[in-house]
Amino acid sequence: MDEVKIIEIKKSIFEDNDRDADNLREELKEKGVFLLNLMSSPGSGKTTTLISAINLLKNNLRIAVMEADIDSDVDARKIKDATGIETIQLHTGGMCHLDAEMTRQGLQNLKLAETDLAILENVGNLVCPAEFDTGSCRNVMILSVPEGHDKPLKYPLMFSICDVVLVNKIDVAPYFDFSMDECVKNIHLRNPKTKVMPICAKTGEGVQAFTDWLLEEVKNWKKL
Amino acid sequence: MDEVKIIEIKKSIFEDNDRDADNLREELKEKGVFLLNLMSSPGSGKTTTLISAINLLKNNLRIAVMEADIDSDVDARKIKDATGIETIQLHTGGMCHLDAEMTRQGLQNLKLAETDLAILENVGNLVCPAEFDTGSCRNVMILSVPEGHDKPLKYPLMFSICDVVLVNKIDVAPYFDFSMDECVKNIHLRNPKTKVMPICAKTGEGVQAFTDWLLEEVKNWKKL
Repeated sequence: MDEVKIIEIKKSIFEDNDRDADNLREELKEKGVFLLNLMSSPGSGKTTTLISAINLLKNNLRIAVMEADIDSDVDARKIKDATGIETIQLHTGGMCHLDAEMTRQGLQNLKLAETDLAILENVGNLVCPAEFDTGSCRNVMILSVPEGHDKPLKYPLMFSICDVVLVNKIDVAPYFDFSMDECVKNIHLRNPKTKVMPICAKTGEGVQAFTDWLLEEVKNWKKL
Repeated sequence: MDEVKIIEIKKSIFEDNDRDADNLREELKEKGVFLLNLMSSPGSGKTTTLISAINLLKNNLRIAVMEADIDSDVDARKIKDATGIETIQLHTGGMCHLDAEMTRQGLQNLKLAETDLAILENVGNLVCPAEFDTGSCRNVMILSVPEGHDKPLKYPLMFSICDVVLVNKIDVAPYFDFSMDECVKNIHLRNPKTKVMPICAKTGEGVQAFTDWLLEEVKNWKKL
């Protein structure tokens, strides 16, 4: 696999992350860059989903990806190999989330003047990433079928801050006690406005609905 | 389902968690109580595994369970209903992990004089719980097949501190790109001493190997 650039992220010193995140969004708006923050549990399929989505979008948008992990660069190399787009690896030094300043450190390593859509694959964690605004324009999370439809009951904040929940691995639903109706009900309990989109990232099923939504969001953002 | 006691855990004020955890272990040793800390990602099967294990052990040991979650008490009620043993729910107030003092707050609500084995089901998270010693006598984690065999590469600390890794949901392995050999290799890269036990918590397959190990550990602890 290709080598990828690895950035060691430093712990940020800003106390007011919310303000810093608003500033970052302003900066991105001026540059015409849309930042997507993608979150999930470990192993729910963020990387596979991104590969599938990027391959549908890359002829319409100039995309760059930041892969955040505590260690390793397997995901960044996978994305670079499978899509050919600019991908960098952010190492969080053991930290469980990214805040706005840490995200900014990553963005400084991208060619933003040639980017319409920057995607941050956050650390796999349903708790801490929800507490820190990264400065993203939209938050999307993935819940995979094997995790169970009760997760919105246990991780309320994560489900309340997401614009879209992608329900992944629907191909294996017959082998799990998973109810899509219960899942949607539990998600809407946390945020009635959240869009729920069932997908199978491995086969690409349902991913077009997500990329249609995302393309529209990016276009609207660049018009603002 | 039965009502369960819900404890709202307060943020702890101790700066030196490692020393506090050692103190808690000493207190538990004096009382003859073995504390097991069970960790995993969200949805990997901690609760189902506990039900299966407790039903194998409850005639040999007096067991009590503390279920830690940010919100809801679904897991505590499930365990109480399925096993009949003493179960309490700890609410972490949004926090992503338990430390020793928070664990002590939970233990104070159990009947320790009538307990051989106290089990803490930690918050579903592969990052933060690994950073805080709870005062437990042994750490066990669950990695489920759908999460993938590469997880030890991305969450190094969690895999390095566990005495046992239970690899759950082996019944669905044919539907996922999962290699048990790679999994064991990646786990031993982080900690060569970790025991790896494949299980299917839903059917009970392999759980006896885990409870045999646990029973032996509890007996040894009480002898010390």
